[in-house]
Amino acid sequence: MIARLAHIVEALGGELIGDPSTPVARLATLAAADAQALSFAVGPKYREAMLASRAGVLVVPPVLQAEAVAQAAVVVASNPYLYFARLTQWWVARDRAAGPAPQVHPSAVVDPSARLGARVAVGPFAVIEANVEIGDDAVIGAHTVVEREAVVGAGTRLAPRVQLGARCRIGARGLVHSGAVIGADGFGFAPDGGAWVKIEQLGAVAIGDDVEVGANCTIDRGALDDTVIEDGVKLDNLIHIGHNVHIGAHTAMAGCAAVAGSARIGRGCTIGGDAKILGHLTLADGVHISACSVVTRSILQPGTYTGFFPIDDNATWEKNAASLRSLHKLRERVRALERIPHNKD
Amino acid sequence: MIARLAHIVEALGGELIGDPSTPVARLATLAAADAQALSFAVGPKYREAMLASRAGVLVVPPVLQAEAVAQAAVVVASNPYLYFARLTQWWVARDRAAGPAPQVHPSAVVDPSARLGARVAVGPFAVIEANVEIGDDAVIGAHTVVEREAVVGAGTRLAPRVQLGARCRIGARGLVHSGAVIGADGFGFAPDGGAWVKIEQLGAVAIGDDVEVGANCTIDRGALDDTVIEDGVKLDNLIHIGHNVHIGAHTAMAGCAAVAGSARIGRGCTIGGDAKILGHLTLADGVHISACSVVTRSILQPGTYTGFFPIDDNATWEKNAASLRSLHKLRERVRALERIPHNKD
Amino acid sequence: MIARLAHIVEALGGELIGDPSTPVARLATLAAADAQALSFAVGPKYREAMLASRAGVLVVPPVLQAEAVAQAAVVVASNPYLYFARLTQWWVARDRAAGPAPQVHPSAVVDPSARLGARVAVGPFAVIEANVEIGDDAVIGAHTVVEREAVVGAGTRLAPRVQLGARCRIGARGLVHSGAVIGADGFGFAPDGGAWVKIEQLGAVAIGDDVEVGANCTIDRGALDDTVIEDGVKLDNLIHIGHNVHIGAHTAMAGCAAVAGSARIGRGCTIGGDAKILGHLTLADGVHISACSVVTRSILQPGTYTGFFPIDDNATWEKNAASLRSLHKLRERVRALERIPHNKD
Repeated sequence: MIARLAHIVEALGGELIGDPSTPVARLATLAAADAQALSFAVGPKYREAMLASRAGVLVVPPVLQAEAVAQAAVVVASNPYLYFARLTQWWVARDRAAGPAPQVHPSAVVDPSARLGARVAVGPFAVIEANVEIGDDAVIGAHTVVEREAVVGAGTRLAPRVQLGARCRIGARGLVHSGAVIGADGFGFAPDGGAWVKIEQLGAVAIGDDVEVGANCTIDRGALDDTVIEDGVKLDNLIHIGHNVHIGAHTAMAGCAAVAGSARIGRGCTIGGDAKILGHLTLADGVHISACSVVTRSILQPGTYTGFFPIDDNATWEKNAASLRSLHKLRERVRALERIPHNKD
Repeated sequence: MIARLAHIVEALGGELIGDPSTPVARLATLAAADAQALSFAVGPKYREAMLASRAGVLVVPPVLQAEAVAQAAVVVASNPYLYFARLTQWWVARDRAAGPAPQVHPSAVVDPSARLGARVAVGPFAVIEANVEIGDDAVIGAHTVVEREAVVGAGTRLAPRVQLGARCRIGARGLVHSGAVIGADGFGFAPDGGAWVKIEQLGAVAIGDDVEVGANCTIDRGALDDTVIEDGVKLDNLIHIGHNVHIGAHTAMAGCAAVAGSARIGRGCTIGGDAKILGHLTLADGVHISACSVVTRSILQPGTYTGFFPIDDNATWEKNAASLRSLHKLRERVRALERIPHNKD
Repeated sequence: MIARLAHIVEALGGELIGDPSTPVARLATLAAADAQALSFAVGPKYREAMLASRAGVLVVPPVLQAEAVAQAAVVVASNPYLYFARLTQWWVARDRAAGPAPQVHPSAVVDPSARLGARVAVGPFAVIEANVEIGDDAVIGAHTVVEREAVVGAGTRLAPRVQLGARCRIGARGLVHSGAVIGADGFGFAPDGGAWVKIEQLGAVAIGDDVEVGANCTIDRGALDDTVIEDGVKLDNLIHIGHNVHIGAHTAMAGCAAVAGSARIGRGCTIGGDAKILGHLTLADGVHISACSVVTRSILQPGTYTGFFPIDDNATWEKNAASLRSLHKLRERVRALERIPHNKD
């Protein structure tokens, strides 16, 4: 669906230089854009790509304005990357508004005691159990199961094939991707003579507003208290959050990260892909964990922390790994050399 | 639903000191408990928290009895943690007994050749294929698919959105969480001139009694023989078990662990979160692998084994990682120093 | 269903030595085989196992022929492993041909605008949205959701509980296992004053022919351009592919591997289990990454690359890990020793 550039600027701001009626058929990267496409040069390092682009509309920062106007209609924005984010949202909202009106699909099984807000969409074969509460404009995807007494905030979208467990709650404007399981049992067992006795998990999961949960994530319910995900947290795919974890507001975690039970992560942290945080630890606000690092102790100072074995060609790695297995002995040998009188300073 | 303390002690034992009619409305942590809550001080290190708790009932070991009775009704138990586990089970069983009677939801697709035991519950949109066998009191969740000739033991619960593949079997009293896929194809291909020729996986998955499988786990079917999970094994979320793996009884694996094809893990092992076990290896009984460690060789002696790069602030890590990449040369340099005659002892 | 050996050799070739009417009731490992089973000795190292086997039929390379014929009917094949792969396919195809004819289950929700080829099977509760296109002989499993405008190639099988997102495409003869989510949003946000502004993901996922995607994998849609998986790629379970990744033809990735956004992997690579490739990197054709290794820089030369901490008993690891945390200082100390005049060569 073609938009006119004037409508975009009207909605999102920025200084328009060029024909307000310029058509925008799509958003595209600089390399892929054609005359009907709008594209972005988010900073000076994209200058070359911008000059080579055939985009009909360019969104650029002031520093690129002079060159951009020579080749396309231009929107000057102080932060083109943020502008890009907002424009993608505007674009999708427009497509949705043009789509079919929300409905509860006749195949869905909705318990009569569930309370659905205005304009709630429920997809085919969704299951909404007793005493569930769903806010206005929420979307429950096909095959999604919302168990008894769960709460879904206004405007939140559960993609198809999501699981929201009994008594779990998610706030407003959230997004949960397919395959995510919120509210499975935490992993708790008492040892008893060589076997394991299950501790039933009686808590739930409490998720704030504006939270995104990636595909096939698992967020376990607490043992007694709730597992808590604060406002604005963003989780990529295949992330595991153990029971009774607490994640502070606006923390973002990349794919395959995991947090073991009862860990407490601060606000505004970033956790790299595949990073792991062991149980019962505390991370302060503003801690950044590099990808593939393992957090084994609490980190109480903001900063960036890293720990993984550097990759190398296999032969070199084998030699270094073999040396590493006797590193403490090597240290002793160096100490012995240092102790020899004529080796002392 | 409020319980009376006398009923709990009658069911689970322990020495009751206090009013048998004390009401218990909930189980709670010491910090969150109120006068209607029962809480646990599982050992002396919880003494301070116990003294600060407002719990109406405390379950404590004998060593804490004297102080506990001064502030609450008390159950003295030799192992309060195990008591706690058993009480959570009693609590949940009571809630379930008060719930609706099991039924086969009319929307479920159950093949006429499937044999369902007594009191089997089948959720909305579940699919039960030909010649499936389901034991008494089993629960098949909404949207769960039990493929042809699969077997579900008595009392086993498959949560919503579980996949139990053709000819796969799970024993009695098991629990499989949402999103788990049991019986997808193992990863087997024969190379053929730069491409891969699929080896169809003709085995199945055989799971014993009292096994728990976490959310979004994948347990692949064997190539020819079965993948085997013995009795009492507990798997946390997002665990991958390759084809033809054999896991011994009562072994527990934490979240995101993975076991590559044909590995054989003993009884009573614990595998930490994100630990990985490469293919075709053997682990003896009673082996404990620390979180995030990579097992690359068979381990035939019980004990605890570890291997991951310690985390540090990023600048320190960079320096150490750079040094590590030439560690074998550093070792040579130390050796050279040691060879200098006057450096010899 | 029993096959006659003559039929197998007729279909798959190889030199038959023995009774063509020998019955084959099952394929089995050498150890598990009985007189009605066909088994494989793929090379000389299986000689002992072959001699101990009770298999009624043996598929062997020429070097084992003389000994094999003494104990069973034999098929001599130049590459028995490849023969085995092809025979498993023949075996499964025969079973399928004997099964029920493909049908669209009456409970499936198929949009009238969807175009289904000949002999397409659609399982119970599958959802096929508007303008979807499905090729001949494709299979859409129970509970699988194919969103609007998605394309499924001829002969491709989507197992039960698969998600194929809007506008995503998979080619011919593919196989996607249960729980896989193709086309969830890539993980893209613009920072804005401590919070994250979502970048809607407008691209799709484009998958070639002969691709296999394991259980509970996630392949995200691109931000603007598509995420691309070329022909013949094989992905094991629980693999995460970020947005705008490009994976070259016939590359295989083992379980729990992950590729962060915009990485570009060449053709014919193998990525070991749990290996991670960070974002925006390039891997040349023919690169082999060992299991559990972290790729943090582009790799432009074919070869094998490795990087993980070697496992050890916990006490030894603790000592080495402690030494490692001051390795750069140890290097300085060695340098200092080397600088002492009498320590120079």
